[in-house]
Amino acid sequence: MRTGLTEKFGIDYPIFGFTPSQDVAAAISRAGGLGVLGCVRFNDPGELDEVLEWMHENTDGKPFGVDVVMPAKIPTEGSKVDLDSMIPPEHRAFVERTLDDLGVPPLPEGEDRINTGVLGWLHSVARSHVDVAMEHARKYGQIKLIANALGSPPDDVIALSHENGVAVAALAGSTHHALNHVSAGVDIVIAQGYEGGGHTGEVTSMVLWPEVVDAVGSAPVLAAGGVGSGRQMAAALALGAQGVWMGTYWLTAAEYKLGAAGDGPSTVQKALLKATSRDTVRSRIYSGKPARLLKTKWTQAWEAEGAPDALPMPLQNLLVGEAHARISVSDDPEVVAMPAGQIVGRCNDIVPVADMIADMVAEYTESVARMNESLA
Amino acid sequence: MRTGLTEKFGIDYPIFGFTPSQDVAAAISRAGGLGVLGCVRFNDPGELDEVLEWMHENTDGKPFGVDVVMPAKIPTEGSKVDLDSMIPPEHRAFVERTLDDLGVPPLPEGEDRINTGVLGWLHSVARSHVDVAMEHARKYGQIKLIANALGSPPDDVIALSHENGVAVAALAGSTHHALNHVSAGVDIVIAQGYEGGGHTGEVTSMVLWPEVVDAVGSAPVLAAGGVGSGRQMAAALALGAQGVWMGTYWLTAAEYKLGAAGDGPSTVQKALLKATSRDTVRSRIYSGKPARLLKTKWTQAWEAEGAPDALPMPLQNLLVGEAHARISVSDDPEVVAMPAGQIVGRCNDIVPVADMIADMVAEYTESVARMNESLA
Repeated sequence: MRTGLTEKFGIDYPIFGFTPSQDVAAAISRAGGLGVLGCVRFNDPGELDEVLEWMHENTDGKPFGVDVVMPAKIPTEGSKVDLDSMIPPEHRAFVERTLDDLGVPPLPEGEDRINTGVLGWLHSVARSHVDVAMEHARKYGQIKLIANALGSPPDDVIALSHENGVAVAALAGSTHHALNHVSAGVDIVIAQGYEGGGHTGEVTSMVLWPEVVDAVGSAPVLAAGGVGSGRQMAAALALGAQGVWMGTYWLTAAEYKLGAAGDGPSTVQKALLKATSRDTVRSRIYSGKPARLLKTKWTQAWEAEGAPDALPMPLQNLLVGEAHARISVSDDPEVVAMPAGQIVGRCNDIVPVADMIADMVAEYTESVARMNESLA
Repeated sequence: MRTGLTEKFGIDYPIFGFTPSQDVAAAISRAGGLGVLGCVRFNDPGELDEVLEWMHENTDGKPFGVDVVMPAKIPTEGSKVDLDSMIPPEHRAFVERTLDDLGVPPLPEGEDRINTGVLGWLHSVARSHVDVAMEHARKYGQIKLIANALGSPPDDVIALSHENGVAVAALAGSTHHALNHVSAGVDIVIAQGYEGGGHTGEVTSMVLWPEVVDAVGSAPVLAAGGVGSGRQMAAALALGAQGVWMGTYWLTAAEYKLGAAGDGPSTVQKALLKATSRDTVRSRIYSGKPARLLKTKWTQAWEAEGAPDALPMPLQNLLVGEAHARISVSDDPEVVAMPAGQIVGRCNDIVPVADMIADMVAEYTESVARMNESLA
C-alpha cells in the first residue's frame, strides 16, 4: 500500500500500532507497519533504555516509534510525597474497600510494583523517556516517530525530535486540538474518535476524522478510534486519513505478554476476548481525564451510589496506581482496569501480529474492489 | 452508482434521506436518491394523505418512502386524557417555568398546535399512517419503502407492506436489534451509530456498521449516523453497507421549510448553521428514550441542578409536546428543541438538495480514486 505516510516512513502499510508491549511493537514493525512503544509504564529510564535496545535487536532494521505522555498543562508537579498529601482520605478508603469487596489480593510478597506506571504520567519522567528515545534515535536511526498522548509536546521536544530525524505526532480529540498541534509544529495529527480506548473526546471517528483532515490542510492525519479491520482502514482512507493508529486491537495479539499468567491468554486477554462493543465505558477514573475503559466490576464500583468523583490528573493516577498494580497481577477477568476502545468487540481470538496485518490488508483490498464495482 | 439497494429500488444513488419535510423528501427522490417522509408529525391521517398526494405530483414518478414510529413495546396506550393523568405535576411545573425563564412565548392566538407531533408517537396513530401509506402504495406504486424508527414493525404490518410491494426497513443501534429485525422479516437494517440524530445506542458508526453487516448476513444494511459527505458515504460502503441513511444533513437544505420564519433561514436552521460537531447532546428529554439533540438552552435546562428526570415514552412526548410546539414557532436560535446528529458540524450553508447530492457523489468518486492510488 502507498500513502504519504508509508512513503515518509518507508513502511509497507499505513498501520501504526500503539502498544505498551515491546514484543507486539517489534512484531508490527517487522510485519510492515510501524510499531509504537508506549512508555508510560517505565518509571526507570534505564529499563526503557534496555527495552529500546531489545527493540533494535528484534526489528530487522525497520523503523519504529515511541509514545510518551506529556500533559500540556498539569495541575502540579512534585515528588510523589507532595502529591500524595493532596489525595483525600475518603478516596483512599473507597479504593481499599472496593479492592477488598472485589477480592483483589494484596501485591505478592517482595513484589514492589506499587508505583508501576504512575510516575510515567509526570512531566519530568516523560522527559526522561524523551531523552532515552532521542539517544536511541541518534544511535541506530530506527526511532522515526515520537507521539504524545496529551496535547502538543513542548517546543524544545519538537525541535530536538526534528534535529534527530524523528517526526512528532500528537493525539487530538477535536479540530481545536488538531489546529493547536499543527501551530506548535507537530508533524502528524492522530485524530482519535469517541469510540477509541484511553483518552477520548466526544466526537466520533466518522465525524471527527474528515473534520480534522479538512482543518489541518496539508498535515497528514492518522485515524484512531474504532479501527480493527481492513474495512475500517478503508473507511479511514476514504475519509481522508493517510493511515490508521490502532491500540486496543493489539491487546489480543499472540505476542502480547504483559500481565500474562501462565500458559494461554492472560487475565486481561480473557476479559477482552469476552467483551462486546458495548462493554466499554468512558470515565475519569483511570487518569483523571475522560478515558474509555473496559467495563468491569472495577469501573462499575466507581459508578455505584456513594462512589467518589475521580480526582484531577495526576492525582487520580497516584490514587489508583497501587490498585492497578494489584489488579494487574490478580487473576479475575471480571476485575480488570484496562483502557479499551469499542473495537474490543472484534477482539475475539488470540492472533499473531503478522496475521492480523495480513488480514487487514487483504480486507482493505476487497473493500476497494467493492467500491470500484459501485462505480462500474 | 450501483449497489444492491440502488438496483432494488431503481435509484441512481444509494442515498436514503429521512426528513419530516415533503419538499425535501421529494427533492431527494427527484435528484436520484430515495426520499423518506417522516410521518410522526401528522396527527391527522387526512393531512398525511394530502401530503403523499403532493409527493406523488412532485416526484416525476420516482420512488419514495415513509417513516413511521411504532414502538415495539409501549408502556401504555390510551387516549391523551388517560396518559395525561400519569404525568407528575412537578414535571409540568418544571416545563412551564423553563419556558418562562427562556422567554418562549405562548402559542399565537387561534393556533392550535398544542398536540403537533405528539399523537404520532402512539401506536394507534402510527397504524393510521401505515394504512394511508399502503393505500398510496397501491394507488401509484411509488411508495417502495416503509421504515420504522423504533424496533421491528408488527408482523401484520410487515406482511401488508410486502403484499403491496413495499420493502420494510428498521433502525438498529446494536447487532442484537439488527438480528431481531431480520428474524421478524425486516428487509433492510438501518444501523444507526451513537453520533446520529434522534434515537441512538452507544456504539459508534465506525464500529457498529461492520458489526451489523457481519451479523445479518445477506440482509442489506443502510449506514446511519455521521453521514453528510461523499467521503462518509465512501466510508459506509467501505465498511460493507449498501447505502447511507441521512437525516440531520437535510435540515439545512434550501427546500426545508418547516418552522420557517419569513425570508432566509428559519430559527432552527440558524441554530444548525452555527452548531459545531460538539454541540449535540444525547438525552431522554425528547421522547423518553435516549436521543441525540442539538445542544441549546432548552437541553441545558434539563441538565441543570434540580431538573427532573425525563419520563418514559410516551409520557415524555406528551409532557413536552406543547413546549416543542411553542419553541418551534418562537424565534430564538438559542432555544430550539431539535434532534440532530454530530454531522451538524458540517451543516454550514443552505444548499439545494440536488447540489448536496451532486457534491456527495463527486466526493465519493474522488475517495474511490484516492483509495485506488493507495494500491497502485
